[in-house]
Amino acid sequence: MIRRADSGPYTGYEQTGLPDEDAELTHVMPGSPGGEYLRRFWHPIALESEVSDIALPLRVLGEDLVLFRTLDESYGLLHRRCAHRGASLEYGKCERRGLRCCYHGWLYATDGELLEAPGEPPDTPLLRSVRQGAYPVEVNAGIVFAYLGPSAHRPAFPIYDTFDVPGTKRVPYVYHYPCNWLQIVENAMDPVHAVFLHTRNHGPSFSEAWGQLSVKEYHSADEGFYYTNARRVGDNIWVRVHHVILPNMTQAGAVLSMDGKTPRYFGRPSFTRWVVPVDNENSRAIAWANFGDRSDAQREEWMTPRTIEIIEGAEPRKRSRAEALRKPGDYEAFVSQGRITRHAKEHLATSDKGVALFRRRLRGDIRALADGSAPYSASDHRQAPIPTYAGDNVLHMPPVDGADDAALILDVSREVARIIVSANHLDCEARDTYVRAALVDLQARHAPRSRT
Amino acid sequence: MIRRADSGPYTGYEQTGLPDEDAELTHVMPGSPGGEYLRRFWHPIALESEVSDIALPLRVLGEDLVLFRTLDESYGLLHRRCAHRGASLEYGKCERRGLRCCYHGWLYATDGELLEAPGEPPDTPLLRSVRQGAYPVEVNAGIVFAYLGPSAHRPAFPIYDTFDVPGTKRVPYVYHYPCNWLQIVENAMDPVHAVFLHTRNHGPSFSEAWGQLSVKEYHSADEGFYYTNARRVGDNIWVRVHHVILPNMTQAGAVLSMDGKTPRYFGRPSFTRWVVPVDNENSRAIAWANFGDRSDAQREEWMTPRTIEIIEGAEPRKRSRAEALRKPGDYEAFVSQGRITRHAKEHLATSDKGVALFRRRLRGDIRALADGSAPYSASDHRQAPIPTYAGDNVLHMPPVDGADDAALILDVSREVARIIVSANHLDCEARDTYVRAALVDLQARHAPRSRT
Amino acid sequence: MIRRADSGPYTGYEQTGLPDEDAELTHVMPGSPGGEYLRRFWHPIALESEVSDIALPLRVLGEDLVLFRTLDESYGLLHRRCAHRGASLEYGKCERRGLRCCYHGWLYATDGELLEAPGEPPDTPLLRSVRQGAYPVEVNAGIVFAYLGPSAHRPAFPIYDTFDVPGTKRVPYVYHYPCNWLQIVENAMDPVHAVFLHTRNHGPSFSEAWGQLSVKEYHSADEGFYYTNARRVGDNIWVRVHHVILPNMTQAGAVLSMDGKTPRYFGRPSFTRWVVPVDNENSRAIAWANFGDRSDAQREEWMTPRTIEIIEGAEPRKRSRAEALRKPGDYEAFVSQGRITRHAKEHLATSDKGVALFRRRLRGDIRALADGSAPYSASDHRQAPIPTYAGDNVLHMPPVDGADDAALILDVSREVARIIVSANHLDCEARDTYVRAALVDLQARHAPRSRT
Repeated sequence: MIRRADSGPYTGYEQTGLPDEDAELTHVMPGSPGGEYLRRFWHPIALESEVSDIALPLRVLGEDLVLFRTLDESYGLLHRRCAHRGASLEYGKCERRGLRCCYHGWLYATDGELLEAPGEPPDTPLLRSVRQGAYPVEVNAGIVFAYLGPSAHRPAFPIYDTFDVPGTKRVPYVYHYPCNWLQIVENAMDPVHAVFLHTRNHGPSFSEAWGQLSVKEYHSADEGFYYTNARRVGDNIWVRVHHVILPNMTQAGAVLSMDGKTPRYFGRPSFTRWVVPVDNENSRAIAWANFGDRSDAQREEWMTPRTIEIIEGAEPRKRSRAEALRKPGDYEAFVSQGRITRHAKEHLATSDKGVALFRRRLRGDIRALADGSAPYSASDHRQAPIPTYAGDNVLHMPPVDGADDAALILDVSREVARIIVSANHLDCEARDTYVRAALVDLQARHAPRSRT
Repeated sequence: MIRRADSGPYTGYEQTGLPDEDAELTHVMPGSPGGEYLRRFWHPIALESEVSDIALPLRVLGEDLVLFRTLDESYGLLHRRCAHRGASLEYGKCERRGLRCCYHGWLYATDGELLEAPGEPPDTPLLRSVRQGAYPVEVNAGIVFAYLGPSAHRPAFPIYDTFDVPGTKRVPYVYHYPCNWLQIVENAMDPVHAVFLHTRNHGPSFSEAWGQLSVKEYHSADEGFYYTNARRVGDNIWVRVHHVILPNMTQAGAVLSMDGKTPRYFGRPSFTRWVVPVDNENSRAIAWANFGDRSDAQREEWMTPRTIEIIEGAEPRKRSRAEALRKPGDYEAFVSQGRITRHAKEHLATSDKGVALFRRRLRGDIRALADGSAPYSASDHRQAPIPTYAGDNVLHMPPVDGADDAALILDVSREVARIIVSANHLDCEARDTYVRAALVDLQARHAPRSRT
Repeated sequence: MIRRADSGPYTGYEQTGLPDEDAELTHVMPGSPGGEYLRRFWHPIALESEVSDIALPLRVLGEDLVLFRTLDESYGLLHRRCAHRGASLEYGKCERRGLRCCYHGWLYATDGELLEAPGEPPDTPLLRSVRQGAYPVEVNAGIVFAYLGPSAHRPAFPIYDTFDVPGTKRVPYVYHYPCNWLQIVENAMDPVHAVFLHTRNHGPSFSEAWGQLSVKEYHSADEGFYYTNARRVGDNIWVRVHHVILPNMTQAGAVLSMDGKTPRYFGRPSFTRWVVPVDNENSRAIAWANFGDRSDAQREEWMTPRTIEIIEGAEPRKRSRAEALRKPGDYEAFVSQGRITRHAKEHLATSDKGVALFRRRLRGDIRALADGSAPYSASDHRQAPIPTYAGDNVLHMPPVDGADDAALILDVSREVARIIVSANHLDCEARDTYVRAALVDLQARHAPRSRT
């Protein structure tokens, strides 16, 4: 039951009731339209450090699985229940060729082949007819990725430019959220929350500059969205570029160190992150925190579990409820929306433009797949590695007396975006050199005018 | 599946199965007939002492809310999820004018008005179109009350005579029960349980006099029921008056000190108590324990949390399961009926007369509201404060040789009830004087006869 | 949603989804076909040692009950909620004649008769019309049994020969499993799991001989199944006989001591065990561990709670998850199949013959009852006590050069089974003497041939 009448004081009774979930966008279980869509992409599923000599039980996209490493260091991802009599393979034994079920010793290869059924005759036809459900796996810099979709539609494993930024160290991490994936990932399209949640309301989690409302401009791309989030900081214009790659990958600029005071040209993201549904009501963010001079520096006190929690969620995760109530971070903002946010109860505003764009695109792509059109994927990229845009750009561009500074900031942010996306045809190093030079040049062209 | 055949030994199989819940009487969620009915009354929702400088999440009548206090000491009760993007306002910041959401800084007044949407343009139409669900609040002697019904039908906030008994101190308390409200409140219509649960079965929780079967008489009134519960104690007749005001307010006499041995004329209730549904399967009793010479005296050792638990439930709440099994109190009797008692499995007896009366009246009032007739409420009372009747009356009236003492007790209890309800047109002080004098007179009129 | 395509590598996506439960076989709640079937038998419901001077709440076949012992040592099993107003009788008081409800003092006899309703008039018709649901109870050697079916169909309480094996001590135990009963009991029809789960995969839980694949032969009987599980151990042939009596009783040979090296003639079971459903998703194994020279000897270090856990489940129950992952036992194999195994996802093999037989028989018996045919029960047995067959038989029979040893083992196992079941018409002692002599004779007849 829902009542609505948004007028007058004390309208609690008139607004009683919870609308249905937006199942098309939020539900991810096997067979759901959203689940089918998400299964068309590679997703990180665990950290290598979570895997030991024992199989690791996991739940991904609503499915119970085990991840294991054979004695010759291959990874396998199998349906959790043994195809024989259903015992969980988390009690299996990791051997050289695969995983052996505890109950009757059936041995499965990493691709699901039944290699041995030792209680059966040697020539048992089961060796040909039984296949344990299995998914292909890729490992990259401490993170295990898997593809859970139909084999015929498996896209290339995407390699992004940020996998190899010179002087940058990737530190993998995982972070659990007991809520739906969408309310986590769409936050990456909403830079306004940082002004309030992370700065003004309860004191700054990062630098004070984050508390200033910014000039934002969103750009659509084949792979998703990038947008600029620009502010004046003294004589500098700080243009932060965010990049959200469908369905669930996000990158942004530096977190711990960025205050807009030091010039930076083509900064790179401090995290490369995916928000992966466990099921409809649980998610895991799996990511690298990227430490280096182009993001947050490789300072010892920053490369700690606690500081990485701050990169992920602005506040440390392990703290008392009293602390969380007095200084909420992203975790509290996401999870307190309920296990699945009810969109029909929201009042989206101009500052939610990014959220609205993301939902519209997501809905369109889910429907397109249901109609037979596969989503844009890594296989559709012409370049390898795939270029990405996120990072901070801080240009020395003092305000001009008598000129409209907001217009200037908007102009500059547009130009920064244009420069960054303009060199995708170059290889990584050449592109980097070109973009940085063009940004310095952009700054220089402004200089004379500002001296008047 | 329910089988029934109540005859012969060992009929377990024939009586297997649980009938449906009596949803009409027990369900309270928004939109349910019972919930709509309950929303037509003011209910206590929290103690003032539960509210700090941080918003308090509450669930009342199946709805998630936050209660908060602004910096200038006004109380507000809002829907828990922010009207903007659904973050919980329990993480909000209490300011001078209202509560500010942690996520994007929207500021709500106590009546739900959107005062600020700081990430939006200053002239945003949202300030006019958005209303956070809100409910009006009243505070009285440490308890916060709210009205959750339609604004057009808001009754006067009820002030009862027991809110101001000279020489009496009201101590607020709250007590959680993981079960439906009805099985708690209807116990107040059942004085027989005190004979067994609180006295005979496991030894007395109060005085021994409670273990004697009493003479009971029930009276209907516009606002609910009052009844007399009368016993002989030596040369005294102890007439305890209980008052149950629909839907969920109960008052009775003294608890800790009453043994029927000391004369008392127009004693007043030792608790003023409401049983408020959290949802269908949880409830909170919110009440004042009233300490004074007319109820339980203001003795230091009685005005403790543990003793107040005994006033509420006959036994302390914090104890081991072993202790609870050996000396169950009201908590065990209520909660062990299951989350919602199944009425169709019961066998009501003559001693359940009060329970049956209460259910019948409640069902009638719920149906009447569904048919468009509002329930009797505080606004319908001619007097203010509203007179109530509960308390102990102990008259010195020795038994008369050769006379029917049970008939005498019944006569006296009728006369006590008649006297107490007869002076409602007087103001509080005058009424008190009148009733006490009339009771003393009643006792005196008996005296000569008892000396024969 | 279920997809199926058991071919090719990486078929995880194609095999996604969980089929429905096999409700006919696994569901046990009141009114379900399986529940009705199970209610036609006596089941153990608790240990005597679980019952104190306070009533014990139990859940059996999906029904909430209380088991209690009166002051004159009779046992009663009643529906948990009082027929009056539904308070739980677990808070009742055990008296000489029965159990008295805490709430209003109603007193029930062990057969459910309402003996007193002390708040009512002495001649209340309730004493005739109210019956608390009750079930008949039998106690045997520390275990309390009950019959939960229709009174008219109550079978005789079954007394088995193993209740009285000279020199054997029965030690009762109970063991909880959070899963359906069927996946526990059908394991008793699957001797192959012992080769892998208990021996080869993670090192032996018992002796090394258990790790050798055996020659198995299944036999159907009116009361269920018995089967032989035979191996060569050096110059001995070890024929282990298992006996599964419908619906849920299992017996097998020795556990702690059996290695096939010492001759044994007509060994008797080391446990007499029932797997009793609590509800669809929980079960309790209630059993005697039988210590004596014919099973596992009465050694002090074996008659401990920890060792009895090993008899029940091959590994101790109280241990860390890390230990369980490295050396799973029966508990992990049963419970990790999920609360209810999904049969439609399994791939039964030749070694699951016993499981398949058991399910087929169970389904037939459940359907037969639904069609009006009562299952075979203790009342149908001509003998008392009822003969059973389980135990170890180790015969000195060296392999014969040039002869087919597997054929010999099969022949011997058939002959052992034939001998054991052939003397059911004799009384216990005579039967024991006869079977042992016949087994010694069988061994002797082989001797000359093996010396060639």
